[in-house]
Amino acid sequence: MRELLEQAKKHTSVAATLSYEEKQKALLAMADSLILHQDEILSENRKDLEEASEIGDVMKDRLRLSEERVLSMAEGIRRVAKLPNPVGRVLEERQTETGLLISKVSVPFGVVAVIFESRPNVAADTAALCLASGNVSVLRGGKESFRSCHAIVRAMKEGLKKAGLPDGLINMVEDRSRDGAMQLMRANGYVDLLIPRGGAGLIRACVENATVPCIETGTGICHIYVDREADFDMALSIVENAKTQRPSVCNAAEVLLVDSCIAKDFLPRLKARLYGVELRLCEKAGSIIDGKAAGELDFDTEFLDYILAVKVVDGVEEAISHIAAHSTHHSEAIITQNEETADYFLSRVDSAAVYHNASTRFTDGGEFGNGCEIGISTQKLHARGPMGLSELNTYRYIIKGNGQIRQ
Amino acid sequence: MRELLEQAKKHTSVAATLSYEEKQKALLAMADSLILHQDEILSENRKDLEEASEIGDVMKDRLRLSEERVLSMAEGIRRVAKLPNPVGRVLEERQTETGLLISKVSVPFGVVAVIFESRPNVAADTAALCLASGNVSVLRGGKESFRSCHAIVRAMKEGLKKAGLPDGLINMVEDRSRDGAMQLMRANGYVDLLIPRGGAGLIRACVENATVPCIETGTGICHIYVDREADFDMALSIVENAKTQRPSVCNAAEVLLVDSCIAKDFLPRLKARLYGVELRLCEKAGSIIDGKAAGELDFDTEFLDYILAVKVVDGVEEAISHIAAHSTHHSEAIITQNEETADYFLSRVDSAAVYHNASTRFTDGGEFGNGCEIGISTQKLHARGPMGLSELNTYRYIIKGNGQIRQ
Repeated sequence: MRELLEQAKKHTSVAATLSYEEKQKALLAMADSLILHQDEILSENRKDLEEASEIGDVMKDRLRLSEERVLSMAEGIRRVAKLPNPVGRVLEERQTETGLLISKVSVPFGVVAVIFESRPNVAADTAALCLASGNVSVLRGGKESFRSCHAIVRAMKEGLKKAGLPDGLINMVEDRSRDGAMQLMRANGYVDLLIPRGGAGLIRACVENATVPCIETGTGICHIYVDREADFDMALSIVENAKTQRPSVCNAAEVLLVDSCIAKDFLPRLKARLYGVELRLCEKAGSIIDGKAAGELDFDTEFLDYILAVKVVDGVEEAISHIAAHSTHHSEAIITQNEETADYFLSRVDSAAVYHNASTRFTDGGEFGNGCEIGISTQKLHARGPMGLSELNTYRYIIKGNGQIRQ
Repeated sequence: MRELLEQAKKHTSVAATLSYEEKQKALLAMADSLILHQDEILSENRKDLEEASEIGDVMKDRLRLSEERVLSMAEGIRRVAKLPNPVGRVLEERQTETGLLISKVSVPFGVVAVIFESRPNVAADTAALCLASGNVSVLRGGKESFRSCHAIVRAMKEGLKKAGLPDGLINMVEDRSRDGAMQLMRANGYVDLLIPRGGAGLIRACVENATVPCIETGTGICHIYVDREADFDMALSIVENAKTQRPSVCNAAEVLLVDSCIAKDFLPRLKARLYGVELRLCEKAGSIIDGKAAGELDFDTEFLDYILAVKVVDGVEEAISHIAAHSTHHSEAIITQNEETADYFLSRVDSAAVYHNASTRFTDGGEFGNGCEIGISTQKLHARGPMGLSELNTYRYIIKGNGQIRQ
């Protein structure tokens, strides 16, 4: 591991100084190489699937590759090649009285380590985003997908070489034990940024154990608050969309807060609209419509399923304090026709994305105009919300003088 | 502690939504209150000094307050009151095809915890910067300065109340044990940002133990590389300034790298110019001028004193790799008349501030136009270099729609 990290670090200055054209060429070669090595990747994937016979169907589906999925990985890399170069942007510039020119310029982090779980396509996706942003990647996938990831990384490395670049720009941790992940989390001086991509357990492990800079991503207990002055039709359509359009993703709504003034009128309509969804109701909501009583944990659970916890609250103030106590700071929405109430909510709810009269499902790199995302940050340091290529850069001050000394 | 943190968290929405005028008024009241309670502060400071009789003279000097120092704290707060409001700036804005208006808006972190050492003025300084940036502060000073900090915080809290604000916007940890600091470092969900202000030991303890987002600040092993094409007079003046103008600060130079092509001519002139400075020489340098031989640790030490480690290197490439291996990523400089060599250095040296033909002493919040600083970040996440009010803010996406749902 030490050797791998030293190699990775050694390659950071190459990665950081690649031209846009070099990166584009390399990304296209990586995509081509994935297609070229499709059979090998699929055959290694079958071995992974055989070995992982004891895992559940959902996990198996995440792990399974197909011709279509390999093609879609390659297409993903080609899309990244089209995104603008995030490196070398002058973010601010000022000339001091003494004539120093101080420029704040975007630069890559250096070595970006990504720990992920069973989906092997994350390897391709992450390696492409890191390269495009001028970083050296160190990938550590779940042990179930080891052979698949290995084949994918091998193909991408070959692509790099064909494009005339060192294959050390992309690295994969061979150590399949927990210890391998732990070493990455504590590789101070080698890993400049650690991003966990996966479930709540992985993220917690990284936050608790990492001594390298780490960005918490992902889990979303997203709330929608339907205010007394909401347009009911709009509210129903937004709640339905946020809950049911794709319940397995982090920006899906998990909790509905309804203003007590309108609960009697709104909840029966909600129940009719969300007929396929299991509602878990607070006591007040349960006195208005039928449904399962909400248990203690139901307001702190990311269901990722056709389940919605429903709570009646006394107005926007209680909605805000419920969200402060239970949210994962991902995305929350207020539905109201009253601009003042909306502004009150928007300025006090402390989440990465806060919506007025729109679905939480929009929190996404594509929708936000990044064209891609390496994850959705739910913490506040460096980046919040969808992280694209720009967020995989930091900055450096470059100061040009002609002999200035400090008085 | 738990109660203190809960109180702090409760006050974040008040702090975040204060108007600029309210903050200015409060800051001026805090400054006035420090002056008003000067006698009390000085008397508590005397008690601290009596109790800390066993500490060294340097520490004592840091701990000691005087009428002048109290006045200077108050002036510092008044200067902060004049800085522009960092909260609520629209950093980016875009309208999507579906009509959503997505704004990226600067917002405070929430609770900012600062762990510092013996200088009690850090309490005033930090509390002012946190309030001005819309954050609630939690201060934890060294045990030597406990009474002084307490008196300072009490005076500032009284100022807050006079300005009509809750005194819970500024908080001080009463627990003087190591455990108090440790609890802050692990207060996930309560502390949004932890900033250690102090020596290398404190910073290492925070980086190793913190599970809350933490920004590494401070230590600076800054390098100056004198290239073969340097103007010698300029180089001598910059090295002298960076080493001797104020050797105890983090942006002072600690290591000089000299191109082997010019070492024979340059080093004798250096020795003559830096006559009061102890030079610790690599073997090659030692064969040209007299001086102490550099020991194993001399190229990895922040001397903060009239000591300079000197190494002869074979050109810019070796200079860059020496810096990569030994720098703390604070500030480095190249002195050369060759623009190409300078650009090569500037694009490859991975430090917060990289200089061409200027002294490293300019890395400073005031010089960089921030008007203040809470510390100088030597890591890459969120902020690099001098951190001012803007860097004490994060951002939030505010999305306004009229019923948009995701297709």
